[in-house]
Amino acid sequence: MSSSLTTTRVLARDLARHTGQTVTLKGWVQSCRHLGGLAFVILRDRSGVAQVVLEGELAARPLPEEAVVAVTGEVAADPRAVGGAEVRASALEVLSAPTRVPPFEINKKTLKASLETILEHRAFALRHPRIGAALRVQAALIEGFRNYLAGQGFLEVRTPKIVATGTEGGANLFPVQYFEQRAFLAQSPQLYKQMLVGAGYERVFEVGPAYRAEDHNTSRHLSEFTSLDVEMGFIDSEEDLMDLETELLRSMFAHVAERSAAELDLLGARVPEVPGRIERIPVHEAHEILRRRYRKVSPEGDLDTEGERLICQYVAGEGRPPLVFITRYPASVRPFYSFPDPDRPGLTRTFDLLLAGQEITSGGQRIHDPEVLRESLRRRGLDPAGFQHYLEIFELGMPPHGGFAIGAERLTALVLGLGNAREAAAFPRDRTRLVP
Amino acid sequence: MSSSLTTTRVLARDLARHTGQTVTLKGWVQSCRHLGGLAFVILRDRSGVAQVVLEGELAARPLPEEAVVAVTGEVAADPRAVGGAEVRASALEVLSAPTRVPPFEINKKTLKASLETILEHRAFALRHPRIGAALRVQAALIEGFRNYLAGQGFLEVRTPKIVATGTEGGANLFPVQYFEQRAFLAQSPQLYKQMLVGAGYERVFEVGPAYRAEDHNTSRHLSEFTSLDVEMGFIDSEEDLMDLETELLRSMFAHVAERSAAELDLLGARVPEVPGRIERIPVHEAHEILRRRYRKVSPEGDLDTEGERLICQYVAGEGRPPLVFITRYPASVRPFYSFPDPDRPGLTRTFDLLLAGQEITSGGQRIHDPEVLRESLRRRGLDPAGFQHYLEIFELGMPPHGGFAIGAERLTALVLGLGNAREAAAFPRDRTRLVP
Repeated sequence: MSSSLTTTRVLARDLARHTGQTVTLKGWVQSCRHLGGLAFVILRDRSGVAQVVLEGELAARPLPEEAVVAVTGEVAADPRAVGGAEVRASALEVLSAPTRVPPFEINKKTLKASLETILEHRAFALRHPRIGAALRVQAALIEGFRNYLAGQGFLEVRTPKIVATGTEGGANLFPVQYFEQRAFLAQSPQLYKQMLVGAGYERVFEVGPAYRAEDHNTSRHLSEFTSLDVEMGFIDSEEDLMDLETELLRSMFAHVAERSAAELDLLGARVPEVPGRIERIPVHEAHEILRRRYRKVSPEGDLDTEGERLICQYVAGEGRPPLVFITRYPASVRPFYSFPDPDRPGLTRTFDLLLAGQEITSGGQRIHDPEVLRESLRRRGLDPAGFQHYLEIFELGMPPHGGFAIGAERLTALVLGLGNAREAAAFPRDRTRLVP
Repeated sequence: MSSSLTTTRVLARDLARHTGQTVTLKGWVQSCRHLGGLAFVILRDRSGVAQVVLEGELAARPLPEEAVVAVTGEVAADPRAVGGAEVRASALEVLSAPTRVPPFEINKKTLKASLETILEHRAFALRHPRIGAALRVQAALIEGFRNYLAGQGFLEVRTPKIVATGTEGGANLFPVQYFEQRAFLAQSPQLYKQMLVGAGYERVFEVGPAYRAEDHNTSRHLSEFTSLDVEMGFIDSEEDLMDLETELLRSMFAHVAERSAAELDLLGARVPEVPGRIERIPVHEAHEILRRRYRKVSPEGDLDTEGERLICQYVAGEGRPPLVFITRYPASVRPFYSFPDPDRPGLTRTFDLLLAGQEITSGGQRIHDPEVLRESLRRRGLDPAGFQHYLEIFELGMPPHGGFAIGAERLTALVLGLGNAREAAAFPRDRTRLVP
């Protein structure tokens, strides 16, 4: 165990467990400080950072920041070093030396660069622990999503992202040249996840990309985002879906709190508390609250950005989190497949979930009667013939069903208080950004 | 517990555990057989099938096949019934009655329909347990993939599917109109997964769609497929990757054997045995074997379809599975980022994995020196300027690294002996098929 050839690599976070042993660390040189005849290197790997002490000839060599190195040496306990131990190097190999000046300083506690610069040099920026934490937290959120649903008998599926027609009839679609045919990128797996419920799987979920060619460039919107989709058969009403989503979110947040404690700490973030029952406010009552409480008069139908913020503010406080289902939207502002509320003409069994002032979910019960579906399509000026591949399974026995979708980047950004959904995508796509 | 309003739903597979209780079953009417004054219904739900006995008025009502029903009644042990128990119905509600004639008979042991018909009526066909099994097995394969890699410190990532340039320079790409810009669908997350290794995550994997606009329409190819991508930093050579993939596949297959035992049984399939070390044959030796053993003379470079089949046949037998790594491909048949073999001019540190006569993986060590990468791009007539967003992270300290990708549908089809990769996609896309 004395030469770099025979030692195995250990991760920075595990160093203290190897005190007295000769080990190899591999990673990036975060900083190198010379002091007397010694050099103190902070080495960063995927697990964190560790201190390496070089002396003699090793300390004399220039060692640029962000060089990739393998260092072998004995682990010595040292309370002054991060993690309580350091490596006293006997060998150092540079595996890759930088050949250009970094676009910004990466080894400061907070990154001093604009979002635009961070996105332009995305891979480099992700080396910063605060920037890179977003992808780790998002991975944990999605892992929690999968774990909970798999435990409830849901099957994970993958549906096509190249589609012949848009879910909603044609707006905001990216056209694709599909051999001789014109096609589009899917805005959502909506129609396919419903078809898979009807295919007998009953309960399905998908984690996949979804596309919106929206012309505005806001901090909430991505042209390509990760949609966490759920669809469930044999429900009684949309209440079952809100119950499911409540438990799902609680489970996801608990998973993140456990798996990403270090990242949450680093960003000073805490996962939202999910109450046993998230408050459910019909949208017309929400408008009434806005009018009464905030003197905000807004048109019927969907809440606007300010309305969403105020309603979250309204339900929050006294230990209650800013989390609320807005329900019973008018059919006019919901998609053609929304289930009409039999007791309230013009309204639907649909809901949005707002978190910290932003919509993170749309969902609802769906129409399962093919004739009602056809009629709904016609009422919106859509031709049922264009939806025949979708309608067929409804004509062959379709259970009552419904579901919802969560935008993963937006949820991650809200949980971490990032301020922009782009920060939660590895390589975001927006109105103008197509690279890297 | 006597009315359908207060009983909870139980799944078909759990029926025998509720003997003596009143329960509700929900699902599709697979068949309904009248005998005397009774009707024997086989009801299918996501878990399997169960027998329901109707009598009196309930038996007199017509009950079409594939109707969606909720049945409440007492569970009685009956050794003649599937699962050893049946429900003696006291109430039956039709939730959705078919309004069209099925395109083919779904309740026979094997489906008598061409693949074309099955794909045209895909959601309906998936109700057949033998057809629907493919998606369940694929979900288990992917779950096994994730579990193993997460356990090895790999982070799951999602990278853009809308890209500005092709990985390989431009062939077989689907064009996308991205607002004012021309873009393409990603053929692979190759460049992005490498960048994320360089971003400090070191070990990443992705499960996502990939696109190939290939003009031929074979049983192996899909225009849109699920790529299981792995990329790992700090490797010594491609041998590390083959070791990793060996352990990964063993773990995935074990997971499938455990989680999808019922589906494997149904299809008479068995997961392949993975030996401790999968044989590794340099491609020029493979050509030599083909010449010597099978009198097959083939051009240098990649094996053709028949060559892949014969080499698998060669390594298999005497308990050894048809599983082999073909290694050391000439640079001329591999992508620009392939690591040149320093000891063998013209060859690369790359490999394919063949299973049962088909390639399921391509992989290799990648070039991590930015100047060598630039030179490799130029040698292929590609302009390094077009790859600047990719090259940047190589200029800022890039560890030695490499990876591989597995085509999920092809792997699923081979494991299950399906004969066509389309059967392993929920809604496949090929040269001509864009619906459903």
